[in-house]
Amino acid sequence: MSLLPPQIIRTIEELSKLPGIGPKSAERLTFHLLRSSRASPGALGQAMLDLKKDLRYCIECQMITITEKCAVCTDTSRDHSMVLVVEEPLEVIAFERTPYRGVYHVLHGVLSPIDGMGPEQLKIRELITRAKAGGITEIILATDPDIEGEATASYLQEQLRGLVSSVTRLAHGLPMGADIEFADQVTLREALAGRRGM
Amino acid sequence: MSLLPPQIIRTIEELSKLPGIGPKSAERLTFHLLRSSRASPGALGQAMLDLKKDLRYCIECQMITITEKCAVCTDTSRDHSMVLVVEEPLEVIAFERTPYRGVYHVLHGVLSPIDGMGPEQLKIRELITRAKAGGITEIILATDPDIEGEATASYLQEQLRGLVSSVTRLAHGLPMGADIEFADQVTLREALAGRRGM
Repeated sequence: MSLLPPQIIRTIEELSKLPGIGPKSAERLTFHLLRSSRASPGALGQAMLDLKKDLRYCIECQMITITEKCAVCTDTSRDHSMVLVVEEPLEVIAFERTPYRGVYHVLHGVLSPIDGMGPEQLKIRELITRAKAGGITEIILATDPDIEGEATASYLQEQLRGLVSSVTRLAHGLPMGADIEFADQVTLREALAGRRGM
Repeated sequence: MSLLPPQIIRTIEELSKLPGIGPKSAERLTFHLLRSSRASPGALGQAMLDLKKDLRYCIECQMITITEKCAVCTDTSRDHSMVLVVEEPLEVIAFERTPYRGVYHVLHGVLSPIDGMGPEQLKIRELITRAKAGGITEIILATDPDIEGEATASYLQEQLRGLVSSVTRLAHGLPMGADIEFADQVTLREALAGRRGM
């Protein structure tokens, strides 16, 4: 590899550090950037350098933003009595593609003792503070349906008891378009337990 | 998406322009860069900005380099009478992992009339000039074994006739580790035609 100019090697090395991009893909991407008229290393490089600039957490919901409050929390047309709790900022973006019109709270992780993630490492104190401040009637726990996500939801439910009138969890069941034949037994059990009248 | 800060959106957009990276992967990579302790948007961004800086083609072999002559062409311990002709710089790196100790010539593409790539767009004139200068006994044509690569090899063979004593082509046949059952008929035909005594 020493035959390549150092800046090419450095770009390949840095790209290789990204998840799902091995050394071969990094080589291919780097040479694509050198030749392409569409992708530009200059534009991408500048975007990367600016990436963390002025980034902060919304003082209300902890969403990543560049203003004191994010666009959702400053939107008075939204229902501020309903708070949807997610693990990561990208999940807010996912819910924004649905008809949901309440507000959010981003935990920035899940409880995971192995990874050193306890309640102090998450934005849980901020959620409790919001709940205590009043005006919230429902908190929807939308952590992932996996071990850490379920544990985090249970912990939050415990902490929020008595602070808000309703703490709910996203429905579990078959995803739309799923093939029942290939569904795992836990999902099928949840889908049965959560069956609804038609 | 408008909920995300503009620099995050810009990074996602620029990453989406890379081959094999869709909008969802670009989102995931961007948020990985925001959080990761290993990958750094600053280091990657700076590497991208520097990527094209001082890059030039080696005056001998047209390899990408930052000096007048590349490391291979300046290496007097290598066999300068043997020139291996490749389409792209990355292919030089691939051959450098083999015991090959001759020198190279990078065409920077293949003949492809549909894409507007004629002989003038490739580094063919430079190869002819090298051949005419003398001192080369063998030119190995290592363009890809596809339609454009074969056409380019034929064209080069024609152009180099009488200039060097030997113009060869990489062997075609079964790749190592291949399953004969699944080999295509053209490869099998070439493997038969090129069979060697044991």
